[in-house]
Amino acid sequence: MADTTARAARLERAAAATGSAGFDALVVPPSPDLAYLTGYAPMPLERPTLLVVRPGRSPVLLVPALEHPLAAGSSAGTLVELVSWSDGADPYDAAAVLLPRSGRIAVGDELWASHLLGLQAAVAEGVFASASPVMGPLRAVKDTAELEALRRAARAADEAFREICRTTFIGRREDQVAADLASFLVGAGHATADFTIVASGPNAASPHHEPTGRTILPRDAVLLDFGGELGGYFSDISRTVVVGEPPDGFEAVYELVRDAQDAAFRSVIPGVAAQEVDRAGRALIEEAGYGARFLHRIGHGIGMEVHEPPYLVEGNAWALAPGTTFSIEPGIYLEGAFGVRIEDIVAVTPDGAERLNRATRDLQVVS
Amino acid sequence: MADTTARAARLERAAAATGSAGFDALVVPPSPDLAYLTGYAPMPLERPTLLVVRPGRSPVLLVPALEHPLAAGSSAGTLVELVSWSDGADPYDAAAVLLPRSGRIAVGDELWASHLLGLQAAVAEGVFASASPVMGPLRAVKDTAELEALRRAARAADEAFREICRTTFIGRREDQVAADLASFLVGAGHATADFTIVASGPNAASPHHEPTGRTILPRDAVLLDFGGELGGYFSDISRTVVVGEPPDGFEAVYELVRDAQDAAFRSVIPGVAAQEVDRAGRALIEEAGYGARFLHRIGHGIGMEVHEPPYLVEGNAWALAPGTTFSIEPGIYLEGAFGVRIEDIVAVTPDGAERLNRATRDLQVVS
Repeated sequence: MADTTARAARLERAAAATGSAGFDALVVPPSPDLAYLTGYAPMPLERPTLLVVRPGRSPVLLVPALEHPLAAGSSAGTLVELVSWSDGADPYDAAAVLLPRSGRIAVGDELWASHLLGLQAAVAEGVFASASPVMGPLRAVKDTAELEALRRAARAADEAFREICRTTFIGRREDQVAADLASFLVGAGHATADFTIVASGPNAASPHHEPTGRTILPRDAVLLDFGGELGGYFSDISRTVVVGEPPDGFEAVYELVRDAQDAAFRSVIPGVAAQEVDRAGRALIEEAGYGARFLHRIGHGIGMEVHEPPYLVEGNAWALAPGTTFSIEPGIYLEGAFGVRIEDIVAVTPDGAERLNRATRDLQVVS
Repeated sequence: MADTTARAARLERAAAATGSAGFDALVVPPSPDLAYLTGYAPMPLERPTLLVVRPGRSPVLLVPALEHPLAAGSSAGTLVELVSWSDGADPYDAAAVLLPRSGRIAVGDELWASHLLGLQAAVAEGVFASASPVMGPLRAVKDTAELEALRRAARAADEAFREICRTTFIGRREDQVAADLASFLVGAGHATADFTIVASGPNAASPHHEPTGRTILPRDAVLLDFGGELGGYFSDISRTVVVGEPPDGFEAVYELVRDAQDAAFRSVIPGVAAQEVDRAGRALIEEAGYGARFLHRIGHGIGMEVHEPPYLVEGNAWALAPGTTFSIEPGIYLEGAFGVRIEDIVAVTPDGAERLNRATRDLQVVS
């Protein structure tokens, strides 16, 4: 989606942010960070590929010699200088030449430990730290094209939800419904279906339940949490439906989770701290006495990854700027009974927030 | 494939190997290492999941609280003690309680840098190093069931090669042939097709070429390198075919690569050093004056990952034990002209080596 000009601007912003955050260099491994900055997206492997960004210097991409032609022919070839190392040589020595001999070095969160340990040995006087303070804020604020990509992905997930509600749940297994969801996600335009949680009856008390062979029964509540990639950006939506008559006590809990989701959404304005959004939703659930059954933070950033900064969690004072996209997904999990989660992706706007998902949050009854 | 008894034995071997290698603890993140030891295979994410193995102690799995039910219900639930940490708490402090306050700590190669940095801060007096000396040798030597799984995967890749040779290459694009290869891999029994290099004409001079829209022409050589996962284990095979009449100078290079592949295969006996296999193949190519055009090591271990230890590269004295499986894949890459690579997966046997791939290495002419 981004072109060479946009990526060159991102590389410049990354170099400036590296300096502003007090780092002398930024090291980016194959990851969404690297794709964001250069468009180059090789697999992370035992042979290190490392982008080195330094304030006031041109960026350099260190690649395994056998992938030099691949990198040169990629979008990175016109953006950055390429340096290669050959099998049998020490790649960390090759990286050290590009790094300060001492000073602070930021490393991408998804760099493999084997490579970080290699760099720490090769630059013994360097102080290594997470690049999250550099890359997190850059990637969190989406530009117009990114917002449109996230909107398209959200709408396609909405469509998959509408389709799954038209299918039969009773007598089918969780993993069969999950396969349908994956197929609807792709049918609605996703390139891949990346996760399809289908948690029925008591299984929904496990927030990250993996679909099993359990047969769905009348009066089950079924928690659906699914998403995939469309145009390089991800969808992620949760809805909880009931199979005919709801189980005992379900409706009050459903309304509580829905109200908490709304309260958190209404708390979003430019500059609000991430933890305030968590607090706004959690307060209602705590007041109702279910605080201990809301087992997780209220949300996470989303973009080129399903989970990315900012995390909406107690203790995170990150000020949410316009263009920032994240999930709001309170849940209540009652062991042995049922679980409820309702999740929309939202974007901070200049004067509030926009829901990217539009699927109804009214309780849907399926057959 | 492995059952609880097999995994318990693997955990015991890992604890013993941790001590033998001079470590006080082994930390294993979500990765094939974790799946090998416990059968538990969550996604690696920003919330750390960490298995802690200590010599003479019971293994403990630290999980995010919201995934506690998932882990408890998995194969890991009966094998290891579970400890959880909640959103908003510091997971590295929770890990530090399970680790020695000083001493040597081995960390899985694929642990994210963000998590390693967190552990290094929480265990400030610990000395962290790669767990490769612990986990590499354990996973490298396959048991009977693993060897059979790798044989099945290799045979399925052989079948995909036979099928692709029956299709038409002339006038089709590389990415179309790659899509066919992916479909044949799945049709032959693979769960997923993980890579499908189709490099035609001069594109084959790039060892890790990604298929493009280039139309395949008469007299092209086409390098095919593909594989996927079947029963938890991977296939990986390379063959180079010609479209009608070979390009000028091709046949001599092809025979040379084939002879080098054979020489390397014949060098494999129990106890031989990994680098000797590389040398056995490379010597022929160097003698023929193409040494500088053989751009990579001769092979890599394979199993639950496509690339895993041991690496067959100059400088690696690893003694190859019976049951060890790896690729032998010499190549010659001539810029602007063509490339040739021939790759089989082989296993060390008690008295030599077995080729798991059986597809012909005779030059195949396609239409």
